[in-house]
Amino acid sequence: MGKKNVKVGDEVQNKQVIFKDYVTGSPKESDFHITTSTTKLQVPQGSNAVLVKNLYLSCDPVMQFQMRKMEDPLSGYIYYVPGSPINGFGVAKVLDSGHAEFSAGDLVWGTTSWEEYSLIQNPEQLKKIHHTDVPLTHYTGLLGMPGITAYAAIYEVGLPKKGECVFISAASGAVGQIAGQFAKLLGCYVVGSAGTQQKIHLLKNKFGFDDAFNYKQEPDLDAALKRCCPEGIDFYLDHVGGKMLDAVLLNMKLHGRIAICGMISQYNLDEPELLRNVMLLALKRLTVKGFTHRDYHHLYPKILELVLPYIRDKKIFYVEDIVEGLENGPAALVGLFTGRNFGKQILALPPQ
Amino acid sequence: MGKKNVKVGDEVQNKQVIFKDYVTGSPKESDFHITTSTTKLQVPQGSNAVLVKNLYLSCDPVMQFQMRKMEDPLSGYIYYVPGSPINGFGVAKVLDSGHAEFSAGDLVWGTTSWEEYSLIQNPEQLKKIHHTDVPLTHYTGLLGMPGITAYAAIYEVGLPKKGECVFISAASGAVGQIAGQFAKLLGCYVVGSAGTQQKIHLLKNKFGFDDAFNYKQEPDLDAALKRCCPEGIDFYLDHVGGKMLDAVLLNMKLHGRIAICGMISQYNLDEPELLRNVMLLALKRLTVKGFTHRDYHHLYPKILELVLPYIRDKKIFYVEDIVEGLENGPAALVGLFTGRNFGKQILALPPQ
Repeated sequence: MGKKNVKVGDEVQNKQVIFKDYVTGSPKESDFHITTSTTKLQVPQGSNAVLVKNLYLSCDPVMQFQMRKMEDPLSGYIYYVPGSPINGFGVAKVLDSGHAEFSAGDLVWGTTSWEEYSLIQNPEQLKKIHHTDVPLTHYTGLLGMPGITAYAAIYEVGLPKKGECVFISAASGAVGQIAGQFAKLLGCYVVGSAGTQQKIHLLKNKFGFDDAFNYKQEPDLDAALKRCCPEGIDFYLDHVGGKMLDAVLLNMKLHGRIAICGMISQYNLDEPELLRNVMLLALKRLTVKGFTHRDYHHLYPKILELVLPYIRDKKIFYVEDIVEGLENGPAALVGLFTGRNFGKQILALPPQ
Repeated sequence: MGKKNVKVGDEVQNKQVIFKDYVTGSPKESDFHITTSTTKLQVPQGSNAVLVKNLYLSCDPVMQFQMRKMEDPLSGYIYYVPGSPINGFGVAKVLDSGHAEFSAGDLVWGTTSWEEYSLIQNPEQLKKIHHTDVPLTHYTGLLGMPGITAYAAIYEVGLPKKGECVFISAASGAVGQIAGQFAKLLGCYVVGSAGTQQKIHLLKNKFGFDDAFNYKQEPDLDAALKRCCPEGIDFYLDHVGGKMLDAVLLNMKLHGRIAICGMISQYNLDEPELLRNVMLLALKRLTVKGFTHRDYHHLYPKILELVLPYIRDKKIFYVEDIVEGLENGPAALVGLFTGRNFGKQILALPPQ
């Protein structure tokens, strides 16, 4: 493996990121270790699995949640199994296929494992990649799960109208940067928050946000929101929960909408932060919708139709933070929860 | 006044419930005092006000909120003015009218003051009462604001379908008892919570709830909900917020809906209770809608059309807790926040 070509039937060394044990609190690099096992590059006879070479692995906030031991597991979520490789979204190339819809050489994206080669037992969840004139990495981002999430946030849940004020937290993250640009293209006044000055610069100068603030430098989030959204917020896309959500409630307009697709600030707390202003939901007659990409995959062809031209015409930009090598995966993943990433965090594996 | 007839132009003694000063924490009887002033029973010349004799005054949880000093008042809410009578919904009889749409003798319901006679300066908010074959008190309840609220909860916000599990907190209260019966008439499995065994008995035996529990006797609200709603909750009508909302989040089904029209448990707390499970909004893809009757008054003719036959055919029952005399008003109002009332709390004034 490594630099020489591999072929179906070869036995190869397969580097993996192994999950040691259930995590409470913040995940650390030491919650994982790197091992190498031997894998035969062949789909077992009679199986409809697909054997892939993983090219890009996606670091997503929900993965922290999958590291927990859940007493009452939510259906549809895959929890990590101690001693096994973690999994997540990725871009991969099919090497061997037992499934009629996939052939060797196909590029796909979907759920795969954090290892060089994966035998994917449920290939029906994979999507074939037909457009390769755009960076393949984008299929972990604006053409992947975060793209579906951002599309759902703006076009299905929030439906912000021209002139409305849209506020997005974690705005330079995988979903936020796309959602913000969608909202700008719809003619909204778009405000974002992020945790470094570079990210704020990016929001204002690359993504065209109308205003942005560094939440780590604001002693009073309510005041920051009042400064940036003086007439109130029509639509809030919440990625963080906690104190920010609480401050946003104070600044929502009557009949405002809030879409919640994550609460990254809360994932690694033993005790979630106090929400003081939940009562305003009733008094301001707000609508809050929790959502994930899961309910919107049927819209993917429509999303491609919208987003591919935006990418080609440079109407949408996407910033990716690409780290090379599986051995750097744990650090990249853990960095999501301290805001170390600058844009969408991706792990690139060496080509076979 | 009192037993003898009064006529337009008379000067009468007008008993009033006066708001002493802004309230923090729980309201107490001593936050009010009773006075008597002199009122001329005549609409001033050139005014389009309406002069009414108040017959029934409604005690509603939102009134606690109106007693606060708000730094950032919400538009549309009338905050009480220290030294003036409090106000709220009531049923009244027009004695004199400067408004073309109202005449002496008309029965009306709408916002009036806690006093015997009121000069209503904004009569356009009053609704004329045309159906008097049902108790007039009902126009403070299932034919008044709580009726509009319950209708909106079920037919506009929650839209529970036959066979779905509907949970209602404060279920024997002004809104809960109507909403529960609406949901039963739609074929839902309806569960309620309340704070005394008599209320639980009422829910199960009078209103036809499928199950009910006394939240004050349940050491573990999550366990109580799992016992009564073993397959999870499709729609929750929240009147209380706090711990109950938090436990409900654990028991919502995927894609469940929550309608919040009040959070009575939170109104009089300096620090609202911690919500631990807000993250489940995203993970379970729940929709939460805060709402009040205010957005649904245009549906009132439709509501009457639905509810009047239900009352006449005895398909819906409504339990009222009627207290006599303005001097007993403060105790009745304060009792709402300790659950002292048994059904819809109303204050009856002696007829003129």
